[in-house]
Amino acid sequence: MTWYVRLWKFITLAHGSGGKETEELVKNLIVQSVPPELWRVEGGTGLDILDDAALIPAGENRYIAVTVDTYTVKPIFFPGGDLGKLAASGTINDLLMVGAKPLAVLDGVVVEEGFPIEDFKKIMGSFIRTLAEEKVALVGGDFKVMPKGQLDGIVIASMGIGIVEGKPIVDTEIRPGDKIIVSGYLGDHGAAILAAQQSLGVDLGVESDVKPLTRLMLPLLEKYRDSIHGAGDPTRGGLAMLLNNWAEKTKTVIVIDEVKTPVRPQVREYAEMLGVDPFSLASEGAAVLAVEPSRAEEIIEYMHSLGFKEATIIGEVYEPKDPRHAGRVLLKSVAGGVRILEPPSGEIVPRIC
Amino acid sequence: MTWYVRLWKFITLAHGSGGKETEELVKNLIVQSVPPELWRVEGGTGLDILDDAALIPAGENRYIAVTVDTYTVKPIFFPGGDLGKLAASGTINDLLMVGAKPLAVLDGVVVEEGFPIEDFKKIMGSFIRTLAEEKVALVGGDFKVMPKGQLDGIVIASMGIGIVEGKPIVDTEIRPGDKIIVSGYLGDHGAAILAAQQSLGVDLGVESDVKPLTRLMLPLLEKYRDSIHGAGDPTRGGLAMLLNNWAEKTKTVIVIDEVKTPVRPQVREYAEMLGVDPFSLASEGAAVLAVEPSRAEEIIEYMHSLGFKEATIIGEVYEPKDPRHAGRVLLKSVAGGVRILEPPSGEIVPRIC
Repeated sequence: MTWYVRLWKFITLAHGSGGKETEELVKNLIVQSVPPELWRVEGGTGLDILDDAALIPAGENRYIAVTVDTYTVKPIFFPGGDLGKLAASGTINDLLMVGAKPLAVLDGVVVEEGFPIEDFKKIMGSFIRTLAEEKVALVGGDFKVMPKGQLDGIVIASMGIGIVEGKPIVDTEIRPGDKIIVSGYLGDHGAAILAAQQSLGVDLGVESDVKPLTRLMLPLLEKYRDSIHGAGDPTRGGLAMLLNNWAEKTKTVIVIDEVKTPVRPQVREYAEMLGVDPFSLASEGAAVLAVEPSRAEEIIEYMHSLGFKEATIIGEVYEPKDPRHAGRVLLKSVAGGVRILEPPSGEIVPRIC
Repeated sequence: MTWYVRLWKFITLAHGSGGKETEELVKNLIVQSVPPELWRVEGGTGLDILDDAALIPAGENRYIAVTVDTYTVKPIFFPGGDLGKLAASGTINDLLMVGAKPLAVLDGVVVEEGFPIEDFKKIMGSFIRTLAEEKVALVGGDFKVMPKGQLDGIVIASMGIGIVEGKPIVDTEIRPGDKIIVSGYLGDHGAAILAAQQSLGVDLGVESDVKPLTRLMLPLLEKYRDSIHGAGDPTRGGLAMLLNNWAEKTKTVIVIDEVKTPVRPQVREYAEMLGVDPFSLASEGAAVLAVEPSRAEEIIEYMHSLGFKEATIIGEVYEPKDPRHAGRVLLKSVAGGVRILEPPSGEIVPRIC
């Protein structure tokens, strides 16, 4: 256990922000307490890789993908979506990011005593509609009420099950040479939630991008499964956290180009105004892919044809020249210089999912 | 939608008590909003049956069982266990109750800012230890922090995956003639939590029975899978809720004998003192089975040999003589009369899991 973990006495908001502190807490206080032989089901993946979903082998070239997330965002209704749409989309996307076809979801809903039934119906309606539009079944769940004052509003735990037929997309397969692709604008969700939480009266003109990525990922997997080495959705901690995880897991260096990375000008400006790195802002409807370089251009064209007009190559994966640089993410800035893109740390952004 | 559902304006504690109101809310506001073709994965079970776990077909005579529950009990440390042991045991037991071998678990943990790290380590340690003792893998999870005042303490969502090889135990298979068996004393968990919550200074001398039922159910399934028609753990709403669900789902009448139903005298007295039906009190380490009558005695003997010394036959399933009686549970009371054992309603017992 690292020295600062030993010094922690209380859980802080930073522990839940999805940045460095979350990673340290999960690795040191949870993963390290589990006997390594129980980090995964034999032949699958789990705490050893900490990918978007865990994999359980289910016959030749077949895996069951499983994921769970809890959704605690405030406000529960925000520009572009609500807690229900967020929970359903997040679960579906986590399954897609390991190469699975989403099959079924279960929900665990905890509500505060006195919560308005109308709001409950809206949130659950949105959750169910999002699943139904993607033909994902809702096969079970749990419902609890906490006494007034013990919970502010509503929290949804959402669990998803999917099937991988063929090669799963496991982030540890990312390799030097791979091109890094993003499917569209980054940080919209984080910026929209920040603006709604801070109520500075700023009209960003930006809505959350929250949506299931089924229409992007299922065709891509059908056509290019073997050329996609890594996939992730840059939720908590944004692109910065995702790429740092990838670089760390694969002992590579990832270099991205700020000019090429699509961030809306108003999102960038708002982030700068608040002193937040825009690359640490969450997206809830964007995918980041690491792909075979020879196929990258073709994949981008196909993504455009699927309606993801902003899809673009933003960078590349490198073998570190010096082993001490393994795990670093570098950003070629607009100004021309190169800086280290650190994994986010501290409170970054208040609870955004 | 029934008239009283339409009249609800706010969520109440009764909606979360696991009794009639929970059932009405879940059926009317969730199940009815899901298109029926998405209540289950083709060939499996889900919202159509609302069993302890949903089933997803996975080849010939094979199903994946999946379940999710959220655990919100207060106090988080109680006589006989804690929140972590409760979450792990509850998830394992839900899988066992559909005839599955528990394989893996994922957790979604939500903690309040300022929560002591020591308590977090104790709770998660207990959760992990309970899984590890049963060789169940922990393959993933999520961790969130809510700002101070928005959550009281800690909530765990626990999701389980298991494999059914052979006939799944689906409660709709319960039929007239089946004997109803319980594995041991009922209501210990509910009574222990009640006593801890009410802090009347009563020392009940009763601990929660919370435990995984792996050592009971896996051997039983190995030997008697085809003779077990229904299985359930009487958690929220206790035996009363469980049997009412069974009778309703199968349009049968279930008759149980109070004299034969094992409840500790101090649990019975404490429940009576509080005006609570002891049969509505939760157990978290007991199984209720509906079994082929010709095998019932043999099964009881086997349960005794497995260390479940209090296992006993408490009743039987009947074809209703009058169709209007379908779905009823009758109790032969100690005094000799027969009364209807109603499904619990109202707040019954404050949040016990």
